[in-house]
Amino acid sequence: MTNFRLVIQYDGKRYSGWQKQGNTGNTIQGKIEQILSRMTGYAVEIHGAGRTDAGVHARAQIANAKIATEQTAEEVMDYLNAYLPADIAITACEPAPERFHARLNAKGKHYCYRLCDGSVPDVFRRNYICAWERALDIADMQKAAACLVGTHDFRAFSSVNRRFKKSTVRTITALDVIRDGQEIWFDIQGTGFLYNMVRIIVGTLVEVGEGKRRPEGIPEILDSFDRQQAGITMPPHGLMLEEVFY
Amino acid sequence: MTNFRLVIQYDGKRYSGWQKQGNTGNTIQGKIEQILSRMTGYAVEIHGAGRTDAGVHARAQIANAKIATEQTAEEVMDYLNAYLPADIAITACEPAPERFHARLNAKGKHYCYRLCDGSVPDVFRRNYICAWERALDIADMQKAAACLVGTHDFRAFSSVNRRFKKSTVRTITALDVIRDGQEIWFDIQGTGFLYNMVRIIVGTLVEVGEGKRRPEGIPEILDSFDRQQAGITMPPHGLMLEEVFY
Repeated sequence: MTNFRLVIQYDGKRYSGWQKQGNTGNTIQGKIEQILSRMTGYAVEIHGAGRTDAGVHARAQIANAKIATEQTAEEVMDYLNAYLPADIAITACEPAPERFHARLNAKGKHYCYRLCDGSVPDVFRRNYICAWERALDIADMQKAAACLVGTHDFRAFSSVNRRFKKSTVRTITALDVIRDGQEIWFDIQGTGFLYNMVRIIVGTLVEVGEGKRRPEGIPEILDSFDRQQAGITMPPHGLMLEEVFY
Repeated sequence: MTNFRLVIQYDGKRYSGWQKQGNTGNTIQGKIEQILSRMTGYAVEIHGAGRTDAGVHARAQIANAKIATEQTAEEVMDYLNAYLPADIAITACEPAPERFHARLNAKGKHYCYRLCDGSVPDVFRRNYICAWERALDIADMQKAAACLVGTHDFRAFSSVNRRFKKSTVRTITALDVIRDGQEIWFDIQGTGFLYNMVRIIVGTLVEVGEGKRRPEGIPEILDSFDRQQAGITMPPHGLMLEEVFY
């Protein structure tokens, strides 16, 4: 058995997200497992670092898969790339220590949400940038973002349901709001993220940028533990899993 | 009548090219004229600087349209962008001198052909980059490219038919072959280009890069006036009309 560590890039547009959903759903995990299972002749399971939602992209998702094969890492990668659709690519594959687990060993993740405010989005990037009709105030969004950095209970900024028993405390180590020409990048790093957390954080910051909320209101939202107090969930296509830290 | 000068950006993938083809074909020109005609209530004609082929993209195609309207250039642009599909955008619109004609006044054009050799293409740019399985020799392609710069009869490097009576002499002012990470850019500027000329030039350079042809063989191809002597026509999706000069 070799434990292969894969780096996976995908355009999430056509998929119901990373995670396999029984026999239904067109998922990234499902696509890759299907090809590895055909290659080996038995059911291979892969473990991804982050369960990206439907429509969310990844520049470097990490996964591992234990495979009994004589094939080298390069051969496994070439086999996968030969059969994967053009919107999923394996960009690296290497043998990892037997105990390496892509999700359990992950120490943090880096996501970036991109939007284009008050101007026509670049047509060549339209599938990766959310178009926002009104211009946004960067300084106010930066002030609000600063209130979210650190260790907090992010229940209000997530779509986990009320009966979710696990801890909703997470640490955001960095949250930068950067203007890059016509685009605004929300660059966020943390130890882990709850369901829809990045998209709800960005939705809340966008409402601040529009002047609908004050940056000073953020701590109150955190303290409410109430999803209704936070902003909208932004559309998925602006979100990219950039990197996983180990 | 106001003569509006439009800057148009498009992803050519879904279209049969720039130029209207009677009542058939899904073209960029057709899409824009349809919306302008609806706006004004009569048939508006637009003139594009370059007739990009089916599947070819443009970052800044230039066109002009004479319209009898009270609307400002900004209103015309907003109207177009409101009705155009997401893969076509008007990035600028301004009133131009009455005699301005986007095609007849164009002094030159800048195209760029992008490919990715010997590696998996970036999935987020896959619609704009041609994947090429084998690694290419840049130095040899640069030598070959240098033979094409200048004023030549480019009949051998075009798909014009034998009975084409007009001059096939064109001037290439610059043709650079640049490696940019995993991508190779064929950056070409000239006074004008024949049908398929850029894609055939790049196809011929790629065959040089693969070692199938010698750079020294280029002048002989020019002198043959024979399409069969040049290389393949590269696929359209790697080609972008970058800029039009006036």
